[in-house]
Amino acid sequence: MSPRPDVSEERKSQILDAAIAVFARLGFHQARMDDIAQEAGLSKGALYLYYKSKDTIIAAILKYLFTQEMKVLHSFVATEQPGSVRTQLEQLTQQLAEAMNWMSRLMPIAFEFYAIAGRQKEVHQFLKEYFKEYRADIARLIQRGIDRGEFRAVNPQAVAITLTALYEGLALLFFVDPQAVQWSEQITTSTRLLLDGLASQPPSPQ
Amino acid sequence: MSPRPDVSEERKSQILDAAIAVFARLGFHQARMDDIAQEAGLSKGALYLYYKSKDTIIAAILKYLFTQEMKVLHSFVATEQPGSVRTQLEQLTQQLAEAMNWMSRLMPIAFEFYAIAGRQKEVHQFLKEYFKEYRADIARLIQRGIDRGEFRAVNPQAVAITLTALYEGLALLFFVDPQAVQWSEQITTSTRLLLDGLASQPPSPQ
Repeated sequence: MSPRPDVSEERKSQILDAAIAVFARLGFHQARMDDIAQEAGLSKGALYLYYKSKDTIIAAILKYLFTQEMKVLHSFVATEQPGSVRTQLEQLTQQLAEAMNWMSRLMPIAFEFYAIAGRQKEVHQFLKEYFKEYRADIARLIQRGIDRGEFRAVNPQAVAITLTALYEGLALLFFVDPQAVQWSEQITTSTRLLLDGLASQPPSPQ
Repeated sequence: MSPRPDVSEERKSQILDAAIAVFARLGFHQARMDDIAQEAGLSKGALYLYYKSKDTIIAAILKYLFTQEMKVLHSFVATEQPGSVRTQLEQLTQQLAEAMNWMSRLMPIAFEFYAIAGRQKEVHQFLKEYFKEYRADIARLIQRGIDRGEFRAVNPQAVAITLTALYEGLALLFFVDPQAVQWSEQITTSTRLLLDGLASQPPSPQ
């Protein structure tokens, strides 16, 4: 007898895909577990085997997305990159911007990512760890720039908090007003403005 | 006969104060309208005359706070300030930091401010207008710095989005991890890092 294959990971990702589609169509508050089961082609009973509520589903989506983004950041920082640290940070920003672009289908539920942190302590804790790792990775990059004499002797942790806050704040402004805040261009422009302030040499005239 | 005085504004602010205390004690989701009525010393019927739900209360708190902050910003930008534009922006940042300090009692419900924008279109619209005015005011200050030759010929709107995003992002990181992100110091440090990048003269060595 061959062992029964474990399909649970596949099933979960099928449910999350269905949930994203339903949330995008109906909004988080109007969507019902029934709608998600139907979209996923599952019985309601089967759905409840994996997720007990919309809250556990939105928490799973958040964790999935943030874990993917952290993988991008980790592998970027761990790999020896060509070019100046400034160029590396600009490339990283571009990668993060692209990751957000496909997240635009999640716009209707963007605010739920914040809300769920208020409702579930465990998600709050997850975000706390996530931002901590995020800042640590960025700080390593900044330190590299200081070591190479590219950046002034700034505090790498303070710069890391600043860049992390900038990305999160831009995402929030984008959620609130996608017409006014062009995500891809703005994240590049904002990062450059900040990097100009770190340079050991004054920025070249525009 | 003297006209009956209109006490509704006073009553509303009494209810919002009571609600803030109850939310801080019980959290937003555990708190009931009964608890708020009791804290405010009102009957439940009297409470419902003013606010129909916890959602309308949290929306009213958000609007009150954001309107206060906008008044600080408006009056700051409208008044002729002494000193360089850089100094003015640093002072403004300090004022905003102080405003946030007393908001620390609202920490337990901070995430609800985002959530309510997802639940109520009208609050979303309010935030959109709020950020628009906010960016316009900051852009005016940046333009002043360019006109005076203090700043390089940057795009004032792009800088305004960057600073607004920075403040909002720092607030978010502070909500998630108040121990790791020291709000008052960090907002000053981050603003300075960004302003260093705007200077027409290179920043002085540290």
